[in-house]
Amino acid sequence: MNAIDQKISDLGLVLPEPSAPVANYVPYVISGKMVFVSGQISKIGDNAIGGRLGEDLTVEQGQAAARLSALNILAQIKAACNGDFGRVKRIVKLGGFVQALPTATQADIPKVINGCSDIMVAVFGDAGRHARFAVSAPSLPLDVAVEIDAIVEIE
Amino acid sequence: MNAIDQKISDLGLVLPEPSAPVANYVPYVISGKMVFVSGQISKIGDNAIGGRLGEDLTVEQGQAAARLSALNILAQIKAACNGDFGRVKRIVKLGGFVQALPTATQADIPKVINGCSDIMVAVFGDAGRHARFAVSAPSLPLDVAVEIDAIVEIE
Amino acid sequence: MNAIDQKISDLGLVLPEPSAPVANYVPYVISGKMVFVSGQISKIGDNAIGGRLGEDLTVEQGQAAARLSALNILAQIKAACNGDFGRVKRIVKLGGFVQALPTATQADIPKVINGCSDIMVAVFGDAGRHARFAVSAPSLPLDVAVEIDAIVEIE
Repeated sequence: MNAIDQKISDLGLVLPEPSAPVANYVPYVISGKMVFVSGQISKIGDNAIGGRLGEDLTVEQGQAAARLSALNILAQIKAACNGDFGRVKRIVKLGGFVQALPTATQADIPKVINGCSDIMVAVFGDAGRHARFAVSAPSLPLDVAVEIDAIVEIE
Repeated sequence: MNAIDQKISDLGLVLPEPSAPVANYVPYVISGKMVFVSGQISKIGDNAIGGRLGEDLTVEQGQAAARLSALNILAQIKAACNGDFGRVKRIVKLGGFVQALPTATQADIPKVINGCSDIMVAVFGDAGRHARFAVSAPSLPLDVAVEIDAIVEIE
Repeated sequence: MNAIDQKISDLGLVLPEPSAPVANYVPYVISGKMVFVSGQISKIGDNAIGGRLGEDLTVEQGQAAARLSALNILAQIKAACNGDFGRVKRIVKLGGFVQALPTATQADIPKVINGCSDIMVAVFGDAGRHARFAVSAPSLPLDVAVEIDAIVEIE
């Protein structure tokens, strides 16, 4: 167990099995030193967090959803590194989508995505500090509140 | 005609002329080994597929729209490779947007984008397997149902 | 003052102080030769442009919003280059989100994002020609009309 696995354990986080491809796309692609992780939704097994800002999703629920996305992203990164988190050089970029109505309180969108950003920094420290966008969408796949993709530099 | 052109022909697909820039952006940029293809909409010539999930777009119509986007992406990739599809090493990432209302059946969003994903794998085989996100937007440019961008590794 | 700074000055543009990180994400990450700039919103200091296409945002107001995003992107690029715009090799990609209702006139979405695209080409010439997507979102953070992220190649 390397330092990152230990950190994940210390934080009380449990990584899911990385999801398998469900269609003609795959959970990640490695190109050169970059890992492109597919959009990871706020669902782990039967635990899905749905809802929509401005309707039936609180900021706290949204952040919990973003944490599920974060765990799914971490599981995919680990798989991309053949299990060795020590190869992660930098979380480069997150692209965050939250389900929201036009009437959502707009300060809530970045707060929700912080649920994922905070885990990246808690786990990887300065190497977890990333660029990102945080936007909204009227609907996301499979009744989830959050979908987040990632670009990661590995060595 | 190389193997990929043959495959495209065998699949009965006809690539459009790659669209020209219409403003101060361009259909693709090559940076190092990566081609960044601009968002390609579900419109080829006068054949545009519009509509919105949850309103007036069926999954089948959406998939047909995603196939138009796929053909436009393929045309741009070919142009970026100076006509030689043999230089394509990997379809790295697709970013898929579908017009949808908040009331859309959410399982339909990934199904729609599969219309593009499936063509990439039909044409390029394993090299066509890509990371992606599939989300929705309330409106897309020029009355189209689908917009998809791409990152492609070439050699 | 190099040629790009001179150009920015000649265009009458004034770059803001690059915004500092407000959470566990950062305004940009450099990975190899690529700078990934976080989504930059249409707000500089107290000057924020909000509104929504199809509701209370005109195309002209949207373009002004996209110009604020452009200035914020330029400020982050300059910071990433330690103040030397001469290191910019290519504006590779913009990802543009405009707040819009499903009822927005859809030709307006690309017109709005042109407000940012045009500045990139005015400032960098051919090196400013970029790939992009231009889509919409029901809501964007902090009551802004536009959010745009960027990928830039530097040397």
